[in-house]
Amino acid sequence: MIPRNLTMLTDFYEFTMSNGYLKNGLADTVAYFDMFFRKIPDNGGYAVMAGLEQLCDYLNGLSFTHDDIDYLRSKGCFCEEFLNYLKNFRFSCDVWAIPEGTPVFPGEPLVTVRGPVIQAQFIETMVLLNINHQSLIATKASRMVRAAQGRAIMEFGSRRAQGADGAILGARAAYIAGCAGTACAITDRAFGVPAVGTMAHSWVQLFDSEFEAFRAYAKVYPDNCVLLIDTYNVLHSGVKNAIRCAKEVLEPAGHRLKGVRIDSGDIAYLTKKTREALDAAGLSDCKITVSNSLDEFLIRDLLLQGARIDSFGIGERLITSKSEPVFGGVYKLAAIEDKDGNIIPKIKISENVEKITTPHFKQIYRLTSHEDGKYIADVLTLRDETIDTKKPYTIFDPTHTWKKRTLESFSAEPLLVQIFKDGKQVYKCPPINEVRAYCAEKLSNLWSEVARFENPHPYYVDLSQKLWDIKRSLLEKY
Amino acid sequence: MIPRNLTMLTDFYEFTMSNGYLKNGLADTVAYFDMFFRKIPDNGGYAVMAGLEQLCDYLNGLSFTHDDIDYLRSKGCFCEEFLNYLKNFRFSCDVWAIPEGTPVFPGEPLVTVRGPVIQAQFIETMVLLNINHQSLIATKASRMVRAAQGRAIMEFGSRRAQGADGAILGARAAYIAGCAGTACAITDRAFGVPAVGTMAHSWVQLFDSEFEAFRAYAKVYPDNCVLLIDTYNVLHSGVKNAIRCAKEVLEPAGHRLKGVRIDSGDIAYLTKKTREALDAAGLSDCKITVSNSLDEFLIRDLLLQGARIDSFGIGERLITSKSEPVFGGVYKLAAIEDKDGNIIPKIKISENVEKITTPHFKQIYRLTSHEDGKYIADVLTLRDETIDTKKPYTIFDPTHTWKKRTLESFSAEPLLVQIFKDGKQVYKCPPINEVRAYCAEKLSNLWSEVARFENPHPYYVDLSQKLWDIKRSLLEKY
Repeated sequence: MIPRNLTMLTDFYEFTMSNGYLKNGLADTVAYFDMFFRKIPDNGGYAVMAGLEQLCDYLNGLSFTHDDIDYLRSKGCFCEEFLNYLKNFRFSCDVWAIPEGTPVFPGEPLVTVRGPVIQAQFIETMVLLNINHQSLIATKASRMVRAAQGRAIMEFGSRRAQGADGAILGARAAYIAGCAGTACAITDRAFGVPAVGTMAHSWVQLFDSEFEAFRAYAKVYPDNCVLLIDTYNVLHSGVKNAIRCAKEVLEPAGHRLKGVRIDSGDIAYLTKKTREALDAAGLSDCKITVSNSLDEFLIRDLLLQGARIDSFGIGERLITSKSEPVFGGVYKLAAIEDKDGNIIPKIKISENVEKITTPHFKQIYRLTSHEDGKYIADVLTLRDETIDTKKPYTIFDPTHTWKKRTLESFSAEPLLVQIFKDGKQVYKCPPINEVRAYCAEKLSNLWSEVARFENPHPYYVDLSQKLWDIKRSLLEKY
Repeated sequence: MIPRNLTMLTDFYEFTMSNGYLKNGLADTVAYFDMFFRKIPDNGGYAVMAGLEQLCDYLNGLSFTHDDIDYLRSKGCFCEEFLNYLKNFRFSCDVWAIPEGTPVFPGEPLVTVRGPVIQAQFIETMVLLNINHQSLIATKASRMVRAAQGRAIMEFGSRRAQGADGAILGARAAYIAGCAGTACAITDRAFGVPAVGTMAHSWVQLFDSEFEAFRAYAKVYPDNCVLLIDTYNVLHSGVKNAIRCAKEVLEPAGHRLKGVRIDSGDIAYLTKKTREALDAAGLSDCKITVSNSLDEFLIRDLLLQGARIDSFGIGERLITSKSEPVFGGVYKLAAIEDKDGNIIPKIKISENVEKITTPHFKQIYRLTSHEDGKYIADVLTLRDETIDTKKPYTIFDPTHTWKKRTLESFSAEPLLVQIFKDGKQVYKCPPINEVRAYCAEKLSNLWSEVARFENPHPYYVDLSQKLWDIKRSLLEKY
């Protein structure tokens, strides 16, 4: 990626609070913050974690320039001691996170930060921005990929993205979740996400006729000739000229027409008729790509109706997650340490029960059945707890505690891995193709009931008995 | 802003087409492209043009590095002549655009590009990305600002933005459209959009009690003390501790409590009760800020219900334009020039009538009534047409052509101004405060019927007789 210093991309209150902690002698108080979300976009059954590599880049690059300091001084509300602190800023927090590509669920810490409160507080905005954005797009892309049932989905939305990072990193997140590639060239350059593209309507318009436009393209790209056939009329003009191009231009020179693309009209009807015409002309190897305001529901319905589609290009509804364009992650204080290093759990109360936080320094265990390899539940525990898988283990619903289940023959995998130790990155972000393969593998371990588009079965996220007892006692205290 | 080379942020098909134009001897064919949109987000009555300054930055920075060229060569589909062309790339197009902050309407060219087709085509993605993104946010912000009826709206959404540019430039666009400031510090640093902020719930949680947290804050910021009063319970705890802080900490030292902020619960009820409590304590100068999932409709309803609110902080529903997160601008070929420099108009036909383009090189005139200073209509004309305001001028609906109106006593202002000439920027982007003032002034010239949230009166965008004749004859030709 193009390096940029985004240290100043922070909510102004992070500065006022940090300056306040310093002035109150609290700068070195050790605090624990959790980043988590409460609701899965589109009422889906799971989300896909993404954005960690960019969060690491941000944390590695944290530093204030002289101009930043001068700007802050000009605001007239910060003491020189604080400005000096920023001038000599060295990030020294510990950070744990769930690896990119992992299916994640509400209430689970996706990122936990431990360190001097002045620092752990400061990074809030960018922890949230990075994880919220890419997890949003990865989660949406995963739904679309599932709907396509093995057909390729290409991310085509740069022009409708909310800013350059929206385009670049959105395409990255979509690839992690299973998209086959992108139209965005810089994402290929920067991350190795395969970029593809052929022609726009303007190519066809520029020539005196559609056939001339197709012929000109076929001569330049005989081995990779995909023609856009809806500039004038798909069935009366586009597909006929494409077939003529295959017969008169490509085949005499030993090439095949690779594909056609339809970007408007009724996709079900047009693809069926186009498939018939291509097959009748001996072009059954010619692929059909469609790209017109698609989302997971339209993809599903088109395939149910027998549309003959080999791959999808998806624009605005993927790159902005149009149906629900916000991943509502929050960053909340979970604990502090006293002077002897004892952890004092902290809770945020709310009249909205779902807004009450789970206190303390935690781990998440993902329990997998030995019987079928499917995930059974996640259990949040205190950090130093372990789950003995050799013994039966009872999980229970944290709200309706009489709902219990005792597990035997299962494995328990901790999800949070250490990313930074004392401010230094200790985790190597895997290459994107590994992340993508890991994501596909992990998603295959979900029950299909959890992956349903509408009204999915809620995946269990439980608390260990110890953690539940602590939360309960804090709730009763208030 | 932090400089970044985004030359490679382009759809891959811009490269395949450009290479194809070169191979077909068409690289120097002069083409005209229009960027325009078809539908106003949220079914509103107007949109606000924004993003032009960032488009200028992009065009000024267009250049390919050796690594870019190597990357493209590695794709195996571009000829060396084309790669050489990119190596020596010099932008040489003419660009016209509507200034930022102007109210704009469907079907109007917001940007027109004239130049060698290989270049005018290439910049498509970033023309669209920049104008689509910032116009989306400016349009949404304008709705919210209007709903607030003079109360300040602060943009608070960085953490939920779709990437860093979404946060930074979204805050910029929101300010242009009338927001009073942002929480995003880097947008203040880069663009002078005033950044503000005080405390999060974590500040309150970190101390042993809410009052201690308030006292600590008041001591550091006695002149600018705004307290977040909903960490535990607004009425039973927050407002009481805020008043105690005013009486015991601030007033003895000669300071006043500046404000309180409420971030959850029922805003109408809580602000009324909070106002009563503050007033009863002699704190009628203490302002109330609210910030909980607000949008233009909730703002309007809260004020209708008598909520006592002095200012609003708005997060995710503004920074992502959550209710409609896409501004659907498109970039279409409008004309080419033959070898003698004659303009040959080009049209894109579609079965969807609203997708048919308006051909030719055009100007837009905004007609203003001398009677009341309100905008009457916009008229698209051929570029070299003028409107003689000394004579009566008849406008007509381009679809229902019998709907006519003859104007007298009006002025006609051209909207498209030249931004680049032969690849050099000839337009000075005004300082952001000027753009913001210009936007407010221009919006005040709209009929309130056009500015209604729901079912607004459609603003007239007509064609001149000459342009209509050309469009008609092209339509009949196909």
